[in-house]
Amino acid sequence: MDATSRHVLAEFYGCPHHLLNDVKVIEKKLTEAALAAGAEIREVAFHKFAPQGVSGVVIISESHLSIHTWPELGYAAVDVFTCGTTVNPWDACKFLEQSLEAERVIGMEVSRGSDTPLKAEIKEF
Amino acid sequence: MDATSRHVLAEFYGCPHHLLNDVKVIEKKLTEAALAAGAEIREVAFHKFAPQGVSGVVIISESHLSIHTWPELGYAAVDVFTCGTTVNPWDACKFLEQSLEAERVIGMEVSRGSDTPLKAEIKEF
Repeated sequence: MDATSRHVLAEFYGCPHHLLNDVKVIEKKLTEAALAAGAEIREVAFHKFAPQGVSGVVIISESHLSIHTWPELGYAAVDVFTCGTTVNPWDACKFLEQSLEAERVIGMEVSRGSDTPLKAEIKEF
Repeated sequence: MDATSRHVLAEFYGCPHHLLNDVKVIEKKLTEAALAAGAEIREVAFHKFAPQGVSGVVIISESHLSIHTWPELGYAAVDVFTCGTTVNPWDACKFLEQSLEAERVIGMEVSRGSDTPLKAEIKEF
């Protein structure tokens, strides 16, 4: 079976509150990250929580990007899931690291869609 | 820091082609899985690819569920990401295992949103 995909789970620490709490900023940055990585956007869905926090997803031809933010903690959970070989999920993560002004990011890449699933490797960048 | 969340990455094998290729079925099953696990749905986004395959996301108050299907391989990649303690992500996975008639599911649970991130544990069920 070959639906080989790369799934990056990244923990973003030390991001400014005003960025993580603005749903328009988060939607703009996540879509820009998708495009920066060379992905093709198909659907988007974003939600602003009260009193704070944003969740959002960009569905791309190559799978998806998602984000959940805790502005009060400066923390965001980012996922970039890409099938095929044209998009490197780390490119989207690195774009977001810059644009969300993260002080520290830890990411895990999980191999999905093969017959030997769920191999994981943790990186800090 | 405490944004402690549970992220289950699950590989579904041996699902019938007609289920995995029907965007209405996939949207119905993913939203039902969210509700079955006790989650509160906020936004949904689904996309049908040509010639086959479906991607979809349900944003919940507790984070998200996502799915990407490869009907030709009988394979689906499912994620259930839940913050807080009220929703058990495995409940949604087990609901989907039944409703997508998977022959085999392998899941990995990753601990997110803490100061000791990305601990992973693999289970087969």
